Amino acid sequence: MSEYVAPLKDMMFVLNELAGLGEIAKLPGCEDATPDLVEQVLEECGRFSSGVLSPLNWPGDQEGAQWKDGAVTTPKGFQQAYRQFVEGGWNALHFPVELGGQGLPKLVSTPVQEMWKAANMSFSLCPLLTFGAIEALMLRGTDEQKTVYLPKMIEGTWTGTMNLTEPQAGSDLALIKSRAVPQSQGDHYRIFGQKIFITYGEHDLAENIIHLVLARTPDAPEGVKGISLFVVPKFLVNKDGSLGARNDAKCVSIEHKLGIHASPTAVMVYGEKDGAIGYLVGEENRGLEYMFIMMNAARFAVGLEGVALSERAYQRARDFAKERIQSRDLGGGRASVSIINHPDVRRMLMSMKAQTEATRALAYVVAAALDTVHHSADKEAVARSQAFADLMIPVVKGWSTETGIDVASLGIQVHGGMGFIEETGAAQYLRDARITTIYEGTTGIQANDLVGRKIAREGGVTAKAVIKVMEAVEAELGKAAGDDLAAIRKRFAAAIDAFAETVDWIVATNGSDIKAVYAGAVPFLKMTGITCGGWQMARAALVAEAQLKAGKGDAGFLKAKISTARFFADHFMSQVPGIRDSIVQGATGVMALSEAQF
Amino acid sequence: MSEYVAPLKDMMFVLNELAGLGEIAKLPGCEDATPDLVEQVLEECGRFSSGVLSPLNWPGDQEGAQWKDGAVTTPKGFQQAYRQFVEGGWNALHFPVELGGQGLPKLVSTPVQEMWKAANMSFSLCPLLTFGAIEALMLRGTDEQKTVYLPKMIEGTWTGTMNLTEPQAGSDLALIKSRAVPQSQGDHYRIFGQKIFITYGEHDLAENIIHLVLARTPDAPEGVKGISLFVVPKFLVNKDGSLGARNDAKCVSIEHKLGIHASPTAVMVYGEKDGAIGYLVGEENRGLEYMFIMMNAARFAVGLEGVALSERAYQRARDFAKERIQSRDLGGGRASVSIINHPDVRRMLMSMKAQTEATRALAYVVAAALDTVHHSADKEAVARSQAFADLMIPVVKGWSTETGIDVASLGIQVHGGMGFIEETGAAQYLRDARITTIYEGTTGIQANDLVGRKIAREGGVTAKAVIKVMEAVEAELGKAAGDDLAAIRKRFAAAIDAFAETVDWIVATNGSDIKAVYAGAVPFLKMTGITCGGWQMARAALVAEAQLKAGKGDAGFLKAKISTARFFADHFMSQVPGIRDSIVQGATGVMALSEAQF
Repeated sequence: MSEYVAPLKDMMFVLNELAGLGEIAKLPGCEDATPDLVEQVLEECGRFSSGVLSPLNWPGDQEGAQWKDGAVTTPKGFQQAYRQFVEGGWNALHFPVELGGQGLPKLVSTPVQEMWKAANMSFSLCPLLTFGAIEALMLRGTDEQKTVYLPKMIEGTWTGTMNLTEPQAGSDLALIKSRAVPQSQGDHYRIFGQKIFITYGEHDLAENIIHLVLARTPDAPEGVKGISLFVVPKFLVNKDGSLGARNDAKCVSIEHKLGIHASPTAVMVYGEKDGAIGYLVGEENRGLEYMFIMMNAARFAVGLEGVALSERAYQRARDFAKERIQSRDLGGGRASVSIINHPDVRRMLMSMKAQTEATRALAYVVAAALDTVHHSADKEAVARSQAFADLMIPVVKGWSTETGIDVASLGIQVHGGMGFIEETGAAQYLRDARITTIYEGTTGIQANDLVGRKIAREGGVTAKAVIKVMEAVEAELGKAAGDDLAAIRKRFAAAIDAFAETVDWIVATNGSDIKAVYAGAVPFLKMTGITCGGWQMARAALVAEAQLKAGKGDAGFLKAKISTARFFADHFMSQVPGIRDSIVQGATGVMALSEAQF
Repeated sequence: MSEYVAPLKDMMFVLNELAGLGEIAKLPGCEDATPDLVEQVLEECGRFSSGVLSPLNWPGDQEGAQWKDGAVTTPKGFQQAYRQFVEGGWNALHFPVELGGQGLPKLVSTPVQEMWKAANMSFSLCPLLTFGAIEALMLRGTDEQKTVYLPKMIEGTWTGTMNLTEPQAGSDLALIKSRAVPQSQGDHYRIFGQKIFITYGEHDLAENIIHLVLARTPDAPEGVKGISLFVVPKFLVNKDGSLGARNDAKCVSIEHKLGIHASPTAVMVYGEKDGAIGYLVGEENRGLEYMFIMMNAARFAVGLEGVALSERAYQRARDFAKERIQSRDLGGGRASVSIINHPDVRRMLMSMKAQTEATRALAYVVAAALDTVHHSADKEAVARSQAFADLMIPVVKGWSTETGIDVASLGIQVHGGMGFIEETGAAQYLRDARITTIYEGTTGIQANDLVGRKIAREGGVTAKAVIKVMEAVEAELGKAAGDDLAAIRKRFAAAIDAFAETVDWIVATNGSDIKAVYAGAVPFLKMTGITCGGWQMARAALVAEAQLKAGKGDAGFLKAKISTARFFADHFMSQVPGIRDSIVQGATGVMALSEAQF
């Protein structure tokens, strides 16, 4: 089975030419991110991902995580790989130097994390959840909590989890029932309740697991304003930092899932005995608010899983299509040829490649905006970048993951009958990808956030600013030479218009018919993703054209970039006007039926 | 877990109002298919499917078929269910009375088979393959072969298989290597070779398995014109009809697949010892031709799997959405409501419902055309129906199955996190559906057949005749009252235009740039499915409107049909102009890259 190979050329192109790595490296605190160092980091990460993580991906899927008597065993090789991961400093890469990290910007950690995810998504979920817990503690933890937990978690010797969901409370966290009872003695609470879908809630990779748990204190108000956040370590930590008694937190089972089999999804019970000891993070009743602050990072990271699985699925399908001999070339000749020569296989591979590159480009550009927010001294740039990132994060999350599913499914299709056989490996990517549109907020939740909080609430101000920037790119395309750029311009112009009309309709309609607006939320998210992904591909084509003209760069890569951008325009941006019609004129049909008519 | 319930109301509506059951029942040999009898048959089949097949679906998936020492054990309950299936006469339903069948038309066996497939796709594959083998023998078998094999196979006590694929020969059957050596003694050949992906190639449901095997005789020409068809029984049959010696045909393993776990997919080895005894069917070197004649039935049947899995996925998602309480209604109120009230869940359910009904309607209309072909004395009607069915079968196969995957995936999404948990059952439908776009010819193969043999070769004559009929429906919509029908008309008119333009482009371009045409083949197949499915939904809306006006029928059902047709128009037919653009103007990007640039 072929291993994942990091697409360094495309990553570096996007970092340098589209996401402005040079500018990010000028920001205070990001000075280490020179192009040379970044390339070294990515090369090293590529080797680790190909050599260590990727070979464990399929065996890990087949073996799966195993539960027995409350303990969870990860698949063979995961412990060793995790040790190498920690020793290599990968877990700490993007955390502040003063906390033991390497202080590299998000724009650099983004391709790094894409590689882990592509090589072994199940493995990558462990650090992903740790990062969420670290951020919660960095953000709202007491000094003592930071001292006790952060160094080990940043190093990776302890991992973290996020405990939100309960059987009756999934998308709707207002329904959370877990209780936190303050104790008259000491600074802690006793936590009682059941949490489900807890990624890496129990495992054998780390010495300790630091659970962050949402629960209600006895007199908390109902609903979302009565939820507090607690830190609940698997093993209590002594004053000297050594591990103490086992806490009353237990993994009672793990789920039997469609995919990510190597990632244990735990059912956690807190307080089977006297109550799990938990420490309040921040203030009481503000837990959900803290979660929402962290949510952006987690959603971005899951969006990146879509990019990563697209890339992995593309690589496998491409390799198969080059090797598999079947049927004659339509252009003539008697011999059977490799199937990459057949137009429909080409179309599938181009779809996979174009969508992978478009979702990657948009994600990296958003990562750069987040770096600007965190590091820039220019207040206006910070505000602009924050608004842009807020608008785009539900799109990176929702669109990249929906696309990842489509791409993984196309990957199976390229393989024909072999794609349906598990040993081929292509099916795993679809199974793994299928969770990404669900966890950290379903695509519907992302889309509601996009149309409600990010468009309607501010009257579409940020979206309109983005449209202005896109129009400038469209004008540049108009000045450039060549059929490909002209074709891209045509589709891009139509997509911008359709997007702008839809934004106007959302703003105009939200007050009078909110259900009509939300009925079109997911199509609008898709439209936004295609338009903004197409925008990045159009920028890429302009850069490629200019570099070719100047005789710079790798001509084969640059020409492919232009062709791929054109393919994206003709095959995806061409959908945008139709999506506008279905949103703006199609809401009637969505809500027309009574419940009984279904 | 909720069981499948046959959608009898929609099935009867489509049979009577769209597919013309009344007309079919007037054809010679179809007189038994009165509306009353058909309704009884469907009700009885619905009970069997819900009560016997459906409860075995999920346990069968979890247990899977098991291989040991050449024998295959089907999951618990399958043997008993298969006995009931045979005793109920279901296997024989659509075969001629003189061969022991019940002589019901295809239009009736179509909803019957849809039910089996929806209730338990893995189970339904056993009779599906038997039917293919029966048709081959009915078509080209000698009288002796017919006498020996057909009665038992039609009854169902013996099953059949189709052995085409070899490791190096999938879509490209020219590469088949299996050998058939004529014997100086007797009327048989000795067969040697390995066949893969043989559905129900070995199992424990029947007394005997009748393999139909493609192989080459010693002096056969190379390529597809040197392939012959043989009947190779698992147990040889004595003169008196009793079972004789075990043939030299062995199942050496079964595949570990993404889905249809209960359906054994066998690797068959013929001739491990002296060669399997096989009897020539028809003439030497014409095997592939015979396969192609049968292919239409098999492709239609797989298309119907798409419809069936869509229905099943829809039912489960709908039931879940009505029960699951989560989040407040956007329209106001403090209490959490069932998620069917949320616009995005509605949109997903409407997408599932609309696509299921559209694919069903088109499939049944094609079934009626096939009945006309087989039974009508009106030569012109036969020719017209044959041309229509030939055009539509790749569409029913390709579009319904691609749609089935999308619908099954949406079904998971409606369930949120629960959808990813195998015990919920929603994931199985996606896993099962994923094979349907691959076997019996991938979507790419269907699409090549559509643009090449069905459009380009005849200059688009049949497609243009279909366009005329669709235009008449569009004109009728123009005369009807109401916003919904006006909205449907608008989208339908645009879709017809885009479809017609694309047909013209294919006809005009095929000679000069065949790769450009084939690069758009799958998008064209999708466009054809949406337009022709939309045509049937438009017809359904017209019928519903007329019945409502006349005060006939179930008003709730009829109003839902109109709303669903409108939803289909606004959300799917609205895509057709964009697809035209990507086909007609987007071919350049498909073939632009060199192999090295991927």
